[in-house]
Amino acid sequence: MKETDILITNGIVMTMNSNETVIPNGAVAISGDRIADIGPCDKFSNCRAGKVIDAKNGIIMPGLINTHTHASMSCFRGLADDLHLMTWLNDYIFPAESKLNYEKVKIGALLACAEMILSGTTCFADMYLFEDAVAEAAKAAGVRAVVGEVLYDFPSPSYGLIEEGFVYTENLIKKWKNDPLITVAVEPHSPYLCAPDLLIRAGDLSNEYEVPLIIHVAETQTEVSTIFERYGKTPIAHLAEIGVLSPFLLACHCVALTDKDIEQMAFYDVKVSHNPESNMKLASGIAPVPEMMDAGVCVGLGTDGCTSNNNIDMFLEMDTAAKIHKVNTLDPTVMDAKTVLKMATRDAAKALGLENLTGSLVPGKKADVIVIDTNKPHLTPMYNLHSHLVYAAGGNDVDTSIINGQVVMENRQLLTLDIAKVMADVNQVADEVKLSR
Amino acid sequence: MKETDILITNGIVMTMNSNETVIPNGAVAISGDRIADIGPCDKFSNCRAGKVIDAKNGIIMPGLINTHTHASMSCFRGLADDLHLMTWLNDYIFPAESKLNYEKVKIGALLACAEMILSGTTCFADMYLFEDAVAEAAKAAGVRAVVGEVLYDFPSPSYGLIEEGFVYTENLIKKWKNDPLITVAVEPHSPYLCAPDLLIRAGDLSNEYEVPLIIHVAETQTEVSTIFERYGKTPIAHLAEIGVLSPFLLACHCVALTDKDIEQMAFYDVKVSHNPESNMKLASGIAPVPEMMDAGVCVGLGTDGCTSNNNIDMFLEMDTAAKIHKVNTLDPTVMDAKTVLKMATRDAAKALGLENLTGSLVPGKKADVIVIDTNKPHLTPMYNLHSHLVYAAGGNDVDTSIINGQVVMENRQLLTLDIAKVMADVNQVADEVKLSR
Repeated sequence: MKETDILITNGIVMTMNSNETVIPNGAVAISGDRIADIGPCDKFSNCRAGKVIDAKNGIIMPGLINTHTHASMSCFRGLADDLHLMTWLNDYIFPAESKLNYEKVKIGALLACAEMILSGTTCFADMYLFEDAVAEAAKAAGVRAVVGEVLYDFPSPSYGLIEEGFVYTENLIKKWKNDPLITVAVEPHSPYLCAPDLLIRAGDLSNEYEVPLIIHVAETQTEVSTIFERYGKTPIAHLAEIGVLSPFLLACHCVALTDKDIEQMAFYDVKVSHNPESNMKLASGIAPVPEMMDAGVCVGLGTDGCTSNNNIDMFLEMDTAAKIHKVNTLDPTVMDAKTVLKMATRDAAKALGLENLTGSLVPGKKADVIVIDTNKPHLTPMYNLHSHLVYAAGGNDVDTSIINGQVVMENRQLLTLDIAKVMADVNQVADEVKLSR
Repeated sequence: MKETDILITNGIVMTMNSNETVIPNGAVAISGDRIADIGPCDKFSNCRAGKVIDAKNGIIMPGLINTHTHASMSCFRGLADDLHLMTWLNDYIFPAESKLNYEKVKIGALLACAEMILSGTTCFADMYLFEDAVAEAAKAAGVRAVVGEVLYDFPSPSYGLIEEGFVYTENLIKKWKNDPLITVAVEPHSPYLCAPDLLIRAGDLSNEYEVPLIIHVAETQTEVSTIFERYGKTPIAHLAEIGVLSPFLLACHCVALTDKDIEQMAFYDVKVSHNPESNMKLASGIAPVPEMMDAGVCVGLGTDGCTSNNNIDMFLEMDTAAKIHKVNTLDPTVMDAKTVLKMATRDAAKALGLENLTGSLVPGKKADVIVIDTNKPHLTPMYNLHSHLVYAAGGNDVDTSIINGQVVMENRQLLTLDIAKVMADVNQVADEVKLSR
């Protein structure tokens, strides 16, 4: 090629494409919002680029995709830890959330976007209140996002009664329909907080607009018992019966599953978001991820909100995902580094229905690209790319990030946000939370 | 006080002393190699300091203590992952180690020291070959270390036959006897690679010089079976019978224990090094740490070598230690952040017999102090110090590190090592390893 907008050169290009192509001394050309070409550096020696980014022998790879978080909960990071789930929710999280409004949700989401960019995440799926504020924050930060207003049987601080929740969601879908960064999803909270009617209607809305349907399912054994008491079935079987299982469904957590559940999930091509650190911290359990993958279920990785983690660094989540299943199965070969990297990139994109846009470096896809600086003591020496990224690297090793063709971070400088102001705003929200306690 | 060498001021001082004293707007004065005084900033307003370090409202705390690693294995980071233990050892690690010499071990240890300083570790306990090289590296880097030559029944690349191993260890003890940074330990590898005679003799040597005795014990269920076949006992019961259990003994891993083992460990005041990430990655199992602590056993945290981790960042190890036991016991209240921080500081010092020197900020103790920069998106806002350090912070948030009164890192610049040269040296070692495969 003769001309391109951005040329990232002089790096190890890890495409994460279906052949797992790696180009040792390679470059990625970006034109507009898309990846224009990929190849050895030589190929681009006569190419004029509007901007050249030197990867300095680091790794050029697709940005990581966080398939499940509650971005604005960054306002409550560390507010409550080491507690039983119901104490945590009822005594800390719900009271704090009852004071939220559009502005505060936006402030929290901006902080989370900053944290995500700084740790190599270029796309996230969110579920929360005042979700239009999250979309606006993602847009301002330049981060790709799947957003959805949480729907449940009781009144929400954000929209009031459930009828309004559906109106809110539909408006959100229409407002962001043609946005290059934002996708809207329909997001009923869970089978235990949503009656069958709500779930069915949410499924219908997702089908009508062909947008993802995102829900928490089978997060704990307690939830399974609750659903069994109500409907005489497991949560997955319940969702199957009411007709909500589909390829559009992203089921988050999926910790407490039966073999039959997994079979049904595979049959309906349900997607899963695996959140190991949250499941560990809240003592929810360990999701049967190797079993789901063996059954052919597509599993993407996610951090969950940072009140149950307490960071949203996908590199650290990859490390944990690789390790927890090894010790759980007593088999060190399960969830190898390659598999885990796929869960955080290509498979995560697929889980969100974005596989044609992002998740791997392929000409024609949107340019969601990160550059890892490997010239660091803890990344020296390097025998194996995959192992390094999963077991040794941290989000902080990401040097440069491009989303949808826009450079959002360069040499670790955030270019889209006034981070000092965002932090000051979040600290002010936190001061109010502290005062009200 | 009127004068001091170094004054770290304007921070939240987290002493980690036995009262868990926290001084919100505090300072730490260092004179020579010791902590001279600690108090609110005001107290030092008339104190002249040779050097003032502004903590900028960050956290001033004791440096972290890594109770078990194999520093020089940094040369093999990522060489072999996601493999069964015996494949990993026999096909990758042992062949690579057979090519080691004094120089290479030193190079690897220097890199590990750099990585440790950069991630807030000020003291580590090491077990490896050519351990004098590790001591020299630690000394050069300015890091406090407990070093010990590994002893086992078969010839070692470093000293040949076991007889020489004991001579090597005794010489090491004498050489470093009065060193302010280096403590030498006696380090038989494990009950499965050391016959009872060797273990008894190692115990005697440790008693004679009153130095720690460090050993791997009960790392896997396989080891327990092996020892049971040989001696008809669990590894701990075997060590008890031959008289090796004592307050000087640091037992690393302790994954596969019986209740009776824990009782005996408590009775003999045996210390434990807990290495959760290694135990997860190698699929060894989950150590019964809450049970050991309930029985009164002192447990310190460690990373193990970076071939089974693959970093030696104690902040990440704390995060994992807090989470893995929650999910293992299905109780989110176990291993709270406070407990885990103690395991990485005060209790780690105690596990190594260094509790009078380091592990907490107390006037009179050696000045092993780190400063955490909390002015970062992922550390905003701050409700709870302990939670932040365990669940949200990473080694990279450490801004400044002082060991034994010497500033070894300031504003993230390593002051004791030429890090570019160290990395180049390690890369050369890795190139040889790659060629020989």
